[in-house]
Amino acid sequence: MLKGGYMGKILRVNLTEQTYKEEETAVELAKQYIGGAGFGVKYLFDEVPADTDPLGPANKLIFAPGPFSGTAVPCASRIAAVAKSPLTGAVGMALSGGHFPVELKFAGYDALIIEGKAEKPTYVSIKDGKVSFRSAEHLWGTRTSDCQQLIKDQLRDQNTRIVCIGPAGERLVKVACIINERRALGRKGLGAVMGSKNLKAVAVRGSQEVPVYDKEAFKKARSVMTGAMKESHALYPMFSHIGTPAVLDLTCEMGIFSTKNWAGTGQWAPVDKLGVEANNSRKIGREHCYNCPVGCSQIKLAREGSYAGILTEGPEFESIYSLGGTTGIDNLDAVIAADRLCDELGMDTMSAGVAIGFAMELYEKGILTKSDTGGLELHFGNDKAMQELLLDMAYRRGLGDILADGVKLAAEKIGKGSEKYAMHIKGLELPAYDIRGAKAHGLNYATSYTGADHNRGYAFQEIFGIPVPEAVDRFAYAGKGKLTKWNQDVRCVTCDCATMCAFILDMALPGIATQNTADLMQALTGLPFTPEEVQAVGERVNNLARVFNKLAGFSRADDTFPERIMTEPLKEGNSKGQLISKEDLNTMLDEYYAARGWTTEGVPTPEKLRSLGLEDALKKLEP
Amino acid sequence: MLKGGYMGKILRVNLTEQTYKEEETAVELAKQYIGGAGFGVKYLFDEVPADTDPLGPANKLIFAPGPFSGTAVPCASRIAAVAKSPLTGAVGMALSGGHFPVELKFAGYDALIIEGKAEKPTYVSIKDGKVSFRSAEHLWGTRTSDCQQLIKDQLRDQNTRIVCIGPAGERLVKVACIINERRALGRKGLGAVMGSKNLKAVAVRGSQEVPVYDKEAFKKARSVMTGAMKESHALYPMFSHIGTPAVLDLTCEMGIFSTKNWAGTGQWAPVDKLGVEANNSRKIGREHCYNCPVGCSQIKLAREGSYAGILTEGPEFESIYSLGGTTGIDNLDAVIAADRLCDELGMDTMSAGVAIGFAMELYEKGILTKSDTGGLELHFGNDKAMQELLLDMAYRRGLGDILADGVKLAAEKIGKGSEKYAMHIKGLELPAYDIRGAKAHGLNYATSYTGADHNRGYAFQEIFGIPVPEAVDRFAYAGKGKLTKWNQDVRCVTCDCATMCAFILDMALPGIATQNTADLMQALTGLPFTPEEVQAVGERVNNLARVFNKLAGFSRADDTFPERIMTEPLKEGNSKGQLISKEDLNTMLDEYYAARGWTTEGVPTPEKLRSLGLEDALKKLEP
Repeated sequence: MLKGGYMGKILRVNLTEQTYKEEETAVELAKQYIGGAGFGVKYLFDEVPADTDPLGPANKLIFAPGPFSGTAVPCASRIAAVAKSPLTGAVGMALSGGHFPVELKFAGYDALIIEGKAEKPTYVSIKDGKVSFRSAEHLWGTRTSDCQQLIKDQLRDQNTRIVCIGPAGERLVKVACIINERRALGRKGLGAVMGSKNLKAVAVRGSQEVPVYDKEAFKKARSVMTGAMKESHALYPMFSHIGTPAVLDLTCEMGIFSTKNWAGTGQWAPVDKLGVEANNSRKIGREHCYNCPVGCSQIKLAREGSYAGILTEGPEFESIYSLGGTTGIDNLDAVIAADRLCDELGMDTMSAGVAIGFAMELYEKGILTKSDTGGLELHFGNDKAMQELLLDMAYRRGLGDILADGVKLAAEKIGKGSEKYAMHIKGLELPAYDIRGAKAHGLNYATSYTGADHNRGYAFQEIFGIPVPEAVDRFAYAGKGKLTKWNQDVRCVTCDCATMCAFILDMALPGIATQNTADLMQALTGLPFTPEEVQAVGERVNNLARVFNKLAGFSRADDTFPERIMTEPLKEGNSKGQLISKEDLNTMLDEYYAARGWTTEGVPTPEKLRSLGLEDALKKLEP
Repeated sequence: MLKGGYMGKILRVNLTEQTYKEEETAVELAKQYIGGAGFGVKYLFDEVPADTDPLGPANKLIFAPGPFSGTAVPCASRIAAVAKSPLTGAVGMALSGGHFPVELKFAGYDALIIEGKAEKPTYVSIKDGKVSFRSAEHLWGTRTSDCQQLIKDQLRDQNTRIVCIGPAGERLVKVACIINERRALGRKGLGAVMGSKNLKAVAVRGSQEVPVYDKEAFKKARSVMTGAMKESHALYPMFSHIGTPAVLDLTCEMGIFSTKNWAGTGQWAPVDKLGVEANNSRKIGREHCYNCPVGCSQIKLAREGSYAGILTEGPEFESIYSLGGTTGIDNLDAVIAADRLCDELGMDTMSAGVAIGFAMELYEKGILTKSDTGGLELHFGNDKAMQELLLDMAYRRGLGDILADGVKLAAEKIGKGSEKYAMHIKGLELPAYDIRGAKAHGLNYATSYTGADHNRGYAFQEIFGIPVPEAVDRFAYAGKGKLTKWNQDVRCVTCDCATMCAFILDMALPGIATQNTADLMQALTGLPFTPEEVQAVGERVNNLARVFNKLAGFSRADDTFPERIMTEPLKEGNSKGQLISKEDLNTMLDEYYAARGWTTEGVPTPEKLRSLGLEDALKKLEP
């Protein structure tokens, strides 16, 4: 019986049968996986065979907030969504903040497992333990902001919190996302999983409290955290005021802001037009997740020309990269408009932008011509063409239909040597940081269980120069295997499982994260936790996901980079001349696998799995 | 002391001083003007000199719901907004349903008078008698749906009801409207009045009840009304299911649906593409005003091409006419998208659409060329050009800047004989009904105090064939003067002052409206009312507004039609050959003035004014 932090129940909804049931949240699950992505990966592993069609009814979609969500712990109102990814075929996991995560707890649940496929478009309404299945036939085709408003009106409750998909998810666009207010569970195509289940939305409202086991100890552990936050000048006032666009200025200075489909770094420096100052000139407000004092999310309003008056929450740094940098578009208003359009269509800004940058390079190289683009002049920098193409992707029209499946599949369809311009790892489009100038960041992209994912093991040591656990040289290779394991495990448990905001981890807690998480968990839940046990949760999830991916067909050969990273050195700026050769990658991989206790082929060993209590995984791996 | 129906207080807000005060709602005001437009016109007349600059700080903007708003009387949650119109220079009055009207009552007020001009963009928040002035600098430039959401978030109250303006009102676009949720206080440029006052929005929340004086009598009178509604097959199930687009099918059949800037009636019959069936194919839901069992408002979703996924509440019949019929655009999805765009920009669909149809005819006639249109090919039917031009109007760019002031001023600026194609009366663009085939409807357009306004004295006898007060021939002239007076007075008191929905009046109550309104008023308020007194309220308001307009410079010469109506007979269909010659107009005007007790110049006589208790007006008229 769980005593605090958890609501004690997991809700299982079956769309095929239109039934639901509540299951107890097991103490062992809480202890071994904490919550969030931990719960999600565990349920996925146990219940979805690795060879499952991601867009078939046998795939499951698990939403799980963390134990801190809805408590007095700040910056922890986050939720993980997990399914087998239709974009990568690997474990798909995405996180979002906002208010939906705590609302699910307040409604009584530690996780929501969605199974099967509804016969017709449906949405699910959850209200304090009452679940209803409602027709979404009228909502099918709506954009995400309208959809949410229509549901609130229909439920006669303007305070309902909703996750939903847009036209992209309905059409099984593989870069479709799930939208929560104006935020996204963005990557790995989880919107298409909802679409494949005919699930337009989940609406949640609750009024319960999250129990706290030891209030005094909890308050004390929390004050250690908030004290560290207050001392972080990076958080206050800086990050509160400039948000993630700050990273654009920083990475431009470092020469690792990727532009023009990764061909242009250093040659086209957009910091003046897309950086902090430009973003602040468009900023009209901030948005806070539940119980977050930072409020880094910026609301911006486009000001000029045909984009004037278009508002978005964002664009965050990564969206500025994907819709601006990699497309060579330095019109911030166009990026703002594209960001809003992606949110409305329910499409991942990152993968969508990279796909357009990819198409632009193909067009410039003559691999795509006007007859392929439906007349669009797809030069880098053509913002109007981007708007058109985003719509075409969401509605699967013409070239957009091809790009809708991500650059890996698009390159396979287009052929003609286009593969070498497809910037992805394991099918997931690359984030902003040009890893040629940040080697641990690169190794993390190569080895993350979700594909090229900066968030699974963000090398803040290289980007922000934070010397935890030790100072590193971002151009060096030695030690990056060990560092990447540390980054991935710590980040996994604190941000993905305990669902604390990554910005807090990087800027306030890097040195105390596992200790503080252990103290908070122990006080909140009454379960014993040491820092080592906490870190082991991260390692456990990473290993379990690795086994799932191995069973799904992934191998060492997939822990790699697009050719350009390994053969084209950066041309200018403060990372000039850098690349990561195949040999250097292999050296890093060998060190990483060794640090992980995996075979040289990157497979978790029986010893490692047993030490993490993953005997079930071992059985599946060696039946 | 008022006993029921009224909250007893009027809120006066001064934006220049950032102050507010409450005044008692006078019994005499209630008895003589009932509420809604009655209150608005009365305050305007008393407090705003007729020569006031409509966009100067001396103009006032009065919002007033009716005594039935917020009570058990169905279909009466409506509000009037009144100011001197920047579009016409006459009394400007517009009505909207929804939820804002009752919220203002629940907050404690029978009217809200807005005076002066804020130094900087401001919004006003009203909560149960508490008023606060808040900066709207961050909201300036936002579209109306985003603006409302941002205010709800800032006030931490998702149930706040809001009226606001969009970019058009901010730029003093003379066809700008005020938006309330997804509805509009649409006509006469009242959005520009808000913009001129630097007033972005008014947010209201209340928790009070509207008092009822004699509950038993009220229940009885109400049951007469609901009984009549239930017996009306036009209302149920028909109107509930097909809404105002039904009128398109009807008027097309009658040959009075105006198309292509009133040059095309009968030559281009859009009923298949813009009528009931087409609209129902796009319908995904209905919207109800507060306490309305009908729910005629349709939510529609565009389905095809670049408009796919765009949702709007509407377009209502008049918007289909203006954005479709008069522009020659028979792509309903384009009309849906334009309707939404107008709502977001805060621009009257009717005047905006007519302005575009006007520009299209000028382009086709060679009066405007590509160099005037910024390259747009402004042929009738060019839906993409319409979208561009709507944005250009709201942002006052190029030709859009000229059209933004309505067709009357635009024609003056453009010259070259364009005046004959400017379809307006007193500066207000013409509604859908081609009055050449409905003479009383035409006379109402010519004489309404707000300009060409179908709602001020809708001739349902001609359009729906309802024989109340008697059957009429829509092509005949005789008797139309007297009929128009009756229509204007009855409609004014029931719909504009008592703020009952016009559709209920036309379809359920035409024969019992004044009796039922008197019974309801007497029971609700405890004030004595006879049907004659009720009708006299309508007459009083029409006379008071007429005097205001006279003082503002209007005369018999302004009670006229665009040249086309008087010289170009309808070419085809069931009104073929019809026009209204100057002579026939004059005949009708003479009869109308006589019925009104006005001079042959259309000026209210001292006797008439005295008989209505309008001695103050007489004093201003003959100082």
